[in-house]
Amino acid sequence: MSNKDTPPIQPVSGTVVPRYAGPSTFCRLPELRDVPYCDVAILGIPFDNGTSYRPGARFGPQAIRQASRHLRTNFHPAYDTEPFRQIQVADAGDVACNPYNIEEAIGQIETAATDLLDKADALVSLGGDHTIAVPLLRAVNSKFGQVALVHFDAHLDTWDTYFGAPYTHGTPFRRAAEENLFIDHSSMHVGIRGPLYSRDDLARDAELGFKVVHCDDLQSHGVDHVVKRIRDRVGDHPLYLSIDIDVLDPAHAPGTGTPEIAGLSSRELVNIIRGLQGLNLVAADIVEVAPAYDHAEITSLAAATVAFEMINLMVTRGS
Amino acid sequence: MSNKDTPPIQPVSGTVVPRYAGPSTFCRLPELRDVPYCDVAILGIPFDNGTSYRPGARFGPQAIRQASRHLRTNFHPAYDTEPFRQIQVADAGDVACNPYNIEEAIGQIETAATDLLDKADALVSLGGDHTIAVPLLRAVNSKFGQVALVHFDAHLDTWDTYFGAPYTHGTPFRRAAEENLFIDHSSMHVGIRGPLYSRDDLARDAELGFKVVHCDDLQSHGVDHVVKRIRDRVGDHPLYLSIDIDVLDPAHAPGTGTPEIAGLSSRELVNIIRGLQGLNLVAADIVEVAPAYDHAEITSLAAATVAFEMINLMVTRGS
Amino acid sequence: MSNKDTPPIQPVSGTVVPRYAGPSTFCRLPELRDVPYCDVAILGIPFDNGTSYRPGARFGPQAIRQASRHLRTNFHPAYDTEPFRQIQVADAGDVACNPYNIEEAIGQIETAATDLLDKADALVSLGGDHTIAVPLLRAVNSKFGQVALVHFDAHLDTWDTYFGAPYTHGTPFRRAAEENLFIDHSSMHVGIRGPLYSRDDLARDAELGFKVVHCDDLQSHGVDHVVKRIRDRVGDHPLYLSIDIDVLDPAHAPGTGTPEIAGLSSRELVNIIRGLQGLNLVAADIVEVAPAYDHAEITSLAAATVAFEMINLMVTRGS
Amino acid sequence: MSNKDTPPIQPVSGTVVPRYAGPSTFCRLPELRDVPYCDVAILGIPFDNGTSYRPGARFGPQAIRQASRHLRTNFHPAYDTEPFRQIQVADAGDVACNPYNIEEAIGQIETAATDLLDKADALVSLGGDHTIAVPLLRAVNSKFGQVALVHFDAHLDTWDTYFGAPYTHGTPFRRAAEENLFIDHSSMHVGIRGPLYSRDDLARDAELGFKVVHCDDLQSHGVDHVVKRIRDRVGDHPLYLSIDIDVLDPAHAPGTGTPEIAGLSSRELVNIIRGLQGLNLVAADIVEVAPAYDHAEITSLAAATVAFEMINLMVTRGS
Amino acid sequence: MSNKDTPPIQPVSGTVVPRYAGPSTFCRLPELRDVPYCDVAILGIPFDNGTSYRPGARFGPQAIRQASRHLRTNFHPAYDTEPFRQIQVADAGDVACNPYNIEEAIGQIETAATDLLDKADALVSLGGDHTIAVPLLRAVNSKFGQVALVHFDAHLDTWDTYFGAPYTHGTPFRRAAEENLFIDHSSMHVGIRGPLYSRDDLARDAELGFKVVHCDDLQSHGVDHVVKRIRDRVGDHPLYLSIDIDVLDPAHAPGTGTPEIAGLSSRELVNIIRGLQGLNLVAADIVEVAPAYDHAEITSLAAATVAFEMINLMVTRGS
Amino acid sequence: MSNKDTPPIQPVSGTVVPRYAGPSTFCRLPELRDVPYCDVAILGIPFDNGTSYRPGARFGPQAIRQASRHLRTNFHPAYDTEPFRQIQVADAGDVACNPYNIEEAIGQIETAATDLLDKADALVSLGGDHTIAVPLLRAVNSKFGQVALVHFDAHLDTWDTYFGAPYTHGTPFRRAAEENLFIDHSSMHVGIRGPLYSRDDLARDAELGFKVVHCDDLQSHGVDHVVKRIRDRVGDHPLYLSIDIDVLDPAHAPGTGTPEIAGLSSRELVNIIRGLQGLNLVAADIVEVAPAYDHAEITSLAAATVAFEMINLMVTRGS
Repeated sequence: MSNKDTPPIQPVSGTVVPRYAGPSTFCRLPELRDVPYCDVAILGIPFDNGTSYRPGARFGPQAIRQASRHLRTNFHPAYDTEPFRQIQVADAGDVACNPYNIEEAIGQIETAATDLLDKADALVSLGGDHTIAVPLLRAVNSKFGQVALVHFDAHLDTWDTYFGAPYTHGTPFRRAAEENLFIDHSSMHVGIRGPLYSRDDLARDAELGFKVVHCDDLQSHGVDHVVKRIRDRVGDHPLYLSIDIDVLDPAHAPGTGTPEIAGLSSRELVNIIRGLQGLNLVAADIVEVAPAYDHAEITSLAAATVAFEMINLMVTRGS
Repeated sequence: MSNKDTPPIQPVSGTVVPRYAGPSTFCRLPELRDVPYCDVAILGIPFDNGTSYRPGARFGPQAIRQASRHLRTNFHPAYDTEPFRQIQVADAGDVACNPYNIEEAIGQIETAATDLLDKADALVSLGGDHTIAVPLLRAVNSKFGQVALVHFDAHLDTWDTYFGAPYTHGTPFRRAAEENLFIDHSSMHVGIRGPLYSRDDLARDAELGFKVVHCDDLQSHGVDHVVKRIRDRVGDHPLYLSIDIDVLDPAHAPGTGTPEIAGLSSRELVNIIRGLQGLNLVAADIVEVAPAYDHAEITSLAAATVAFEMINLMVTRGS
Repeated sequence: MSNKDTPPIQPVSGTVVPRYAGPSTFCRLPELRDVPYCDVAILGIPFDNGTSYRPGARFGPQAIRQASRHLRTNFHPAYDTEPFRQIQVADAGDVACNPYNIEEAIGQIETAATDLLDKADALVSLGGDHTIAVPLLRAVNSKFGQVALVHFDAHLDTWDTYFGAPYTHGTPFRRAAEENLFIDHSSMHVGIRGPLYSRDDLARDAELGFKVVHCDDLQSHGVDHVVKRIRDRVGDHPLYLSIDIDVLDPAHAPGTGTPEIAGLSSRELVNIIRGLQGLNLVAADIVEVAPAYDHAEITSLAAATVAFEMINLMVTRGS
Repeated sequence: MSNKDTPPIQPVSGTVVPRYAGPSTFCRLPELRDVPYCDVAILGIPFDNGTSYRPGARFGPQAIRQASRHLRTNFHPAYDTEPFRQIQVADAGDVACNPYNIEEAIGQIETAATDLLDKADALVSLGGDHTIAVPLLRAVNSKFGQVALVHFDAHLDTWDTYFGAPYTHGTPFRRAAEENLFIDHSSMHVGIRGPLYSRDDLARDAELGFKVVHCDDLQSHGVDHVVKRIRDRVGDHPLYLSIDIDVLDPAHAPGTGTPEIAGLSSRELVNIIRGLQGLNLVAADIVEVAPAYDHAEITSLAAATVAFEMINLMVTRGS
Repeated sequence: MSNKDTPPIQPVSGTVVPRYAGPSTFCRLPELRDVPYCDVAILGIPFDNGTSYRPGARFGPQAIRQASRHLRTNFHPAYDTEPFRQIQVADAGDVACNPYNIEEAIGQIETAATDLLDKADALVSLGGDHTIAVPLLRAVNSKFGQVALVHFDAHLDTWDTYFGAPYTHGTPFRRAAEENLFIDHSSMHVGIRGPLYSRDDLARDAELGFKVVHCDDLQSHGVDHVVKRIRDRVGDHPLYLSIDIDVLDPAHAPGTGTPEIAGLSSRELVNIIRGLQGLNLVAADIVEVAPAYDHAEITSLAAATVAFEMINLMVTRGS
Repeated sequence: MSNKDTPPIQPVSGTVVPRYAGPSTFCRLPELRDVPYCDVAILGIPFDNGTSYRPGARFGPQAIRQASRHLRTNFHPAYDTEPFRQIQVADAGDVACNPYNIEEAIGQIETAATDLLDKADALVSLGGDHTIAVPLLRAVNSKFGQVALVHFDAHLDTWDTYFGAPYTHGTPFRRAAEENLFIDHSSMHVGIRGPLYSRDDLARDAELGFKVVHCDDLQSHGVDHVVKRIRDRVGDHPLYLSIDIDVLDPAHAPGTGTPEIAGLSSRELVNIIRGLQGLNLVAADIVEVAPAYDHAEITSLAAATVAFEMINLMVTRGS
């Protein structure tokens, strides 16, 4: 890594190369190997063997990158940023995960993310199913220490095991709690809804330290209220943002494995994210895009937009 | 039917058999023949010959059952229920309806529902097109007497005839009114919107006793207001709930025959239903799911969720 | 053109010919050649060579007409109109546009629209991509003089050129401004959202005279507020309404070329349009429906409904 | 009808109006009302209430017409014809069929076809489901007397009744036999395959006079052999050709109600049809296109092509 | 299991209950628990964690059962059988397989199949991915001893390991060879095509005893030749037939995980199967149907038809 | 470019990185910038403004590259090649083509291809629509002199102009003929079928020197005959192979702009290509993949496979 005084290498411009052409990196950004330093790295994690219902999130990273071609990225008025001029962002490609051995895959992801955080100041991961949050949190903890965790999802993802397996897409945050990977008094779930596996689910979840912003809170109290709750809870802690695309309503994100009706609109989600400006976001993931169930790219476009919003948050952190 | 002191036979557990495996009954519940008594029976009515535009609701019951595999059903926090532990619910299979003779089909549905209500205390029907509400209301009246009717739909469904046919999916509630199948001062439509076949449609509908909660009322006054209007009107009467999936916006329910834009979100619909706890719900239907126009199961998942919410209402009735 | 004392020739009735049968004109209206006079003409403009990302809006007019079969058009309670009884509406067919020469196509559209406005008092155009707004505004100006322009879109469409081309779907309103085709102090964009090509985009747009109702304003202030802002700005001027279907959220309108998440719901859009009753709407377009990306006709149904709402506005103008 | 010495009015040219624009008639031909005489009329019959499994063929006529835009129609080398220069072909629109009363619908179709055959020398009907063959054969018999019937289908369609209904899409040719609507020693089925409802199906079918060219005969003996068998059997009789699109393999025609694997390729079907040049084809139908199950228009394109091939056969008849 | 002198319990008749209604078992057959004895059991194996590319075959059994509603099953002229009158066939439901532990899942499948073969004389399994062939062959061997194995597939499936995993969908027949689960001189692959992972693949495969009928042999020599090669090789040995749906061309079977162009048509496949009458077929599987990639059910219909053909083979075995 | 003595840099191995992960280049090959020399370069040409009906081939290159992940590429038994070990193949990315100016785009393609042929010995282009064949042939001529042209297509593509435009996807080979870009006595069309724009089309085409292998010749005479005709005609000349994916039947390639039924199966196409081993193939294109009309990637997989077969031909040239 070298001198940050040189201006960032920017994405291929849509005024020179039509957006449907050119590199397949996220937002047509440079590859990691092509930049002298890296403020934010984008990492694809094509792993879906922790899925309990509709599989296919292994194709998520490619689909999100393809959908990111839609984005106009020069200036974001909601943040007053020119993100790719202000910081160097680069696409680090995909982690090679063993599709037949979950533990080995988790190790591969942890190693890849740890190595990458040697080269990059912050990380945005493209899943893959939610299992990947465990190794990502490990890597992030090893660089930043314990983090505040804000988790957008229709589901709690704090169950203990499925079919005896400790590492699945329904259990990452129990594992993370057991390993003390997040600051319990600064963490929360947002967008939770629907029936549960057990009457005890919510109580057990609370024992881990989580607060819950139910989807109905949004309906009743509005975006600004939710934003305030998140900001109050996170404070100045380094923040890890984990967004399961199924936090969106299936109308907005059909292409996912365990859709749940009565969810957030994409406008609500985007506006909550925009409300988090200035927080100390150090790493983030967007997971559970299953392209085989998508149509007209609406789910992968939502995920790509969310990833881009996260990058803008990183531009504004500490501001 | 036998002793209700034995605890209900529950659905196959998702922790033993993955949700994509096992029986194809609604929520993987036991078949009716396998339970000693039945509080709520689920009945499929694969009939769509009353359809005026896009047909295909004959495949609705299978699609809704398949989508119900998504549901986690152990505990519902909105009702504080463990529905399948508290009451015995069972799947009664499908009515065999003549696809070439509407009157005969109506008779078959009425007979099947009447027989079923001998064995079950309450009924949730999976359509099929809206024509089926007439024979269902007949069967329900014969057990419970006249009922309050709350009808969620984009359309009034109180037209007189289509092409000379009295029984179609646009006319059930005029037939029901003529047969005095509902309590006129306790009945209403919810979600009505869009242009009409005639300037007189609304006046004629009002003559039948209906009040209308237009979709715009929801926009203007919110869910709680709508809930109050329904509760005030229904009171303690035995309630029949008839939900045409096209009350939802096409973004939330594309898989239907006569979609109408500017409709309810699934969150609004679910929240209204949850507001009806304690009402004396004795029977319900969810109709007009046409799977050939669905994608990623979002429409059939909405219908399955609505049916599950209805069951929870039945658990809480009179509470 | 002849005596307006004869009542309008109406669409084929859905009670005589099922809606899935009969003519393929918009709302099964008469063809222009079959009416003695014409208050509002419907014009298809199958042109999409100004598209920058996903093409296919050339199939828009056919898809919108096909979807218009869904509509019940006799009486519209929101306007208290029987539109096709009150005014004569007819389908003028499609403009033949050169698909290989944008300038020639623009000339063909201008000529066709100008000729049509000799025969019809008002015009509703079915696109096609947004490039077509330029020749349509020219034709409208030549009949009505300068117009107020209200433009619903996710994007400003006031960029200068793409790849050196002055006429594209991202640039029509800069061309229109240069040609003084709209009254700058009476014009505005509604529904704008998302990141931009440049920090200067908004400033440059404002220099053209536009005000912007951002999509977030709708979230914060509601439909009535937006309606008031539009009405205040337009006043009594002859109004041109240009609606890019991508003003809707992709959940409501996936079938378009440059979708942008976090958009309007169809209910919001319809309610804003209904708020414009009495304005002097002289011409309108609905553009950017790309059927290859649609499913279950939800996008083309939204567009057909919007076109029908516009016709109702025309019935009420000056009222 | 007037002087045939004037040359035919031709379709809109694809070199003047792009094929995706212009009228929605079959092959963009003139409407019947616009031609002084008519050699071949195209009739849409949007009726599908005789369907036993997947409905939706009511949308067949519109879909076939839309797909016919693909066709280049000026010169057909396989027949050495310029069909629309040599004979006058026109689109007669759709029959309005009662969707709730099969018998009434059959009467409407018979009347419409009989009237049309007063104005047109020959008829190509676009279905709709196979029920429509009965009224069409009646109309054709009343003009031409008894006809040879060649029926392409995966299924025999000579069952007696379904659910007590005599007129369904599985029974037309038994009804036709009972009414002596075809010459039994000149008629045959082509493309039959798959298991049957009963061991007696084939024997009972043979009693009606049919010969069967099984799909396997094609595999074993080839197209020329099949062509010869048909020609030998039909001879000089006036010929009615009835083609169920499910004679094609589902790979070639997924958009149909009762697909059956192991069928004909579209190349085999087209080549058999081309082998029938010179036969005295007086009327034909192409049925069972269910667009909701199609993709990329491949089924409706196959049907449109088949209809166009039939028109070319009519040009060459008696040659 | 009881007296076989009672006639078999048959499927629900399509003349009594429309095929789109009634039980969701394969061909609407009785459940295993409802029959006093069982000649052929149908077993669903919803397992896809051995997949290397597009996952989703876990939904195969449900999709194949749903598609089997299409089938008319009373009489099969190609075999001269009335299969469900001649033998008792029943649906044994699904094996519950651990989705997170391949070895455990294999054990579960082996146990379930072994238990089932205590109750049933023969077995048709619905996959699931091809990994399941190993435990199925073990169960079959334990009842019938070593079997001749005829394997239809685009791929050899005799690779050694993937990512260190011995049990995947690309390796079952190497494992089977190592365990001596098939008679090497009586076994073969049919339909192999396309490039390979290594120059040695074919040689290593031959060492296991397989002969290969390449897809091109079919093109060159025809169905009868292929049938003869299979029959000669199998002889009188008990036969296990394993059919990967990707042996079909993607035009005929798009809904699969690793499609390979230039494959068999469904007509070729069905005709080869029909040529195997009289062989001693004791067990069979049809695998790799991934419904998320299917359309209009064409892949699952092909699989359902193949399963039904296999049952007919079992009726004729030893004849 | 440097020393060819070093072994080629190979694609990422599917045994190290799962095929759904890793680079998005064709077959996960190295980028051009990463190889010291290049025997065959892959060039994406996302241009579709020459399209006359369904647009969208601009997304072809990305879709073909994505589908190429399916391919196992180590050893090809039909050619006895290990292509990526024997020659260096690399992905040169996309040409940036002006989407609003056909002539400029053609210039950009010609320049890019000419420059690339300075660095690479042979070229495989991924379209894009068929317009691109003109600039590609110019570039190829400038390196290799006049070439034999073998053109697989449903259509002749030798019309003169469309709507006055000389460069469109229906006219490239007339332009090429006018510029003497191919050896007229060594060139031919393969797969032509269907009706034509004019009786003179075939005669005018023959004047340009083309011979035609009609699709029916394949049906009548078989693959070997067609192969021989091509080989005889091409001889030892440097060969340019241009394959429009619509030469395949729509069952095999629905994802294209102007499908034509009754086409080649993918097996026929692949076998013809394999028959061309040893010819002096210097450049090739595969065009007209329009992903918006594809499903389950079958069209893009066919195109990717064809491109890979072409590379194998290049390995064997002169052998």
